[in-house]
Formats: sequence, C-alpha cells, structure tokens
Amino acid sequence: MEAGPRRGRPGHDLESVLRGAVKVFNERGYDGTSMEDLARELGITKSAIYHHVTGKEELLRLGVGRALDALFVILDEVSGLDAPAMARLEELARRSVLLLAAELPFVTLLLRVRGNTKAERQALARRREFDAAVASLVTQARDEGDLRPDVDPAVVARLLYGMINSVVEWYRPRGGGRPAELADIIVTVAFDGLRIKP
Amino acid sequence: MEAGPRRGRPGHDLESVLRGAVKVFNERGYDGTSMEDLARELGITKSAIYHHVTGKEELLRLGVGRALDALFVILDEVSGLDAPAMARLEELARRSVLLLAAELPFVTLLLRVRGNTKAERQALARRREFDAAVASLVTQARDEGDLRPDVDPAVVARLLYGMINSVVEWYRPRGGGRPAELADIIVTVAFDGLRIKP
Repeated sequence: MEAGPRRGRPGHDLESVLRGAVKVFNERGYDGTSMEDLARELGITKSAIYHHVTGKEELLRLGVGRALDALFVILDEVSGLDAPAMARLEELARRSVLLLAAELPFVTLLLRVRGNTKAERQALARRREFDAAVASLVTQARDEGDLRPDVDPAVVARLLYGMINSVVEWYRPRGGGRPAELADIIVTVAFDGLRIKP
Repeated sequence: MEAGPRRGRPGHDLESVLRGAVKVFNERGYDGTSMEDLARELGITKSAIYHHVTGKEELLRLGVGRALDALFVILDEVSGLDAPAMARLEELARRSVLLLAAELPFVTLLLRVRGNTKAERQALARRREFDAAVASLVTQARDEGDLRPDVDPAVVARLLYGMINSVVEWYRPRGGGRPAELADIIVTVAFDGLRIKP
C-alpha cells in the first residue's frame, strides 16, 4: 500500500470494496456469501457497500469483468501480431499465465463461476467466446502444419487452458516463483511435452 | 438402474443419498448446501438422511473418499508395474483420466474441496499425499533420463494433473467421446506436446 492521503477510513473506496469482496467470494464461494458476510469481513457497513454497488451481483460482475476484459485485450494484441498462428498461440498462452499471476484473485473468481445468476451466465458466455477464439487459433496453427492434427481443436484449447488455469490452485505471488519463468515452463510443457526426445 | 426388488422408496438407500448429495454439492457448493437443501433436492426427509449418515460432513467425507480411494488404488497398481518410471507415469495419467470419466461427480467434488471443515482438510491432506507420489515418479523418470530436467518435479506433477483434472469442467459421459480416446489424447498432449516436430 502506498503512503498518501486517503479519504475516509481504509476499505471505503470502490476498488478496496471490490478487492475485499472478490477475496471473500473466493474463500467462501459466491453463493455462500451474503451482503452481511461481506460487510462483516470487510469491516464496513452494508450501506457503505451499497454506496458503491447495487449488491453482490454487481461486485461479481465487476470482478469477473476485470479478468475477462484483460483476457480479450491480450487476445486482440496477439491477433495483431505478424507471426504464424503457432507463435501467436504460444504468445497468447504466455500472456495468459502472466495475467493470471498479476490478477490472481480476479481470474480465480472467473474460473469458479458456475452460472447460477445472470452475471455468472454472462461471464460464462464471454469465456466461451474466448475459448472459441483460442480454438480458432489452434485450427489455424494446425492448417499451417505446426500443430498436431490428430486432436479436435476445441479439445486442444480446453486442455491448454486447463493446464494454464490450474495454476490458480497453487500459485501464490509471494514465493511462487517469477511469473515470467512460470509462463516459460507452461509454454514449454504444453507445446513440447514432458518427454525428452531420443 | 438395474431392475430388481428395492426396499422402501427410491432414493432411500445410502448409495442413492450419497450420489444425490454429491450432485447437489457440485451444483450449489458444499458450503452453500444445508441439510434442508439436501432433503428438498433429494425429495426425502432430513430424518431419512440422518438414518444413514451423521450429517452433511459425513456425506462429503464419503464422496471425496470414493475418489481418493480409487486414486490410491491406481497409484498402487501402477507402482507395481515392471516398467520404467516414465511408462508408469504415463499409465498413471491414463488411468486417472479413465477414473475421472467413470466417477465424474466424486472427482469433481474432490477437486472443489476448499478446506473449511475437518473432512475437507483431511481430503486436502490425502490429495497432497497423492501429489507427492506423482512428483516422486516424475523425479524418477527424470533421473532415468526420459523426462525434461529443466522443470521442478512438483511443478510438472501439478501441471500434468492440472490438465487432467480440468476435464471435469467440460467432459460429460454422454456425448463427451469415449474415455479411452480422451485418455490417449491427454497422455499424447502432455508427454509429447502440441507442436509437430520438424
């Protein structure tokens, strides 16, 4: 936390409320968290939360939105690269790991969304859109002869992001190693495999 | 469901109660499910559930126990194979995918355990024990010169099972393809990578 002037007591601005709420959602589950729980865990009143948002569903929408927006920015950036599809796919995987490490709580929340509310269903629809874009890139890389042709591109996309996303289960910013190294490892394992070729 | 004589109304035996409870836990989250929710969803009384178990924590323990017991059986079987460590690791991965497909609800429950109760913490401890056994097999395969030496064995184990376990998010027994084919795909992608070697 940077030193500096702050208005009101800590935890009262939207960013603090959002970060606190996302932490509680990840620990207790979104469904299992009430506005009362949030207020108690954040140490503020419910009306202080309602000053910023209409309720917990808006906090979910803002939280998963941050992860989704960042994923689509990466996708756009990578799509604009002048490189073979395989290189773009590798770069997308690398940047996805870096994003996951940088925005761990928000990505974790996104990955735990189940689809019981409108905000969750919208998030799942955007995830499917992202997955379809990855599958399309896989198809291109396959058509260019760089990626194994014997597996359905949608399954390849799911397995690749299954490996990447599993990192939220164990990676911790402190003591989890440098994100760039982790990204290198994952790209190497996913694209070149665990086996040493004779 | 096999035809045959049944005592009482359907859903009253422990196996039905357990399967129903695991389904509800997976849909609503364990924390967010009360005994009242379970009784309503299963269409039976709370006392009918208490006839079989002491409460929802025992249902969790039985549910995750089924997945964990099966994983350790596989581990034992594979450890007994007269084969290089790399072949044993591939076989462990293959059988883990088959187990996941065969016992999808139980494995899904295990993978969503967060550690808020004693039953959950015990399940997490057994998962760590399994992960350590996988990491040990990875180390052996590396020492035998078959597996890339540039990645921490614990990280390799996590990434391999991250890919395998991600299958619970999208695989469905009906329409999800044959489990043996899925297992082949995952072993191929994890061990030989996505890239076609020139």
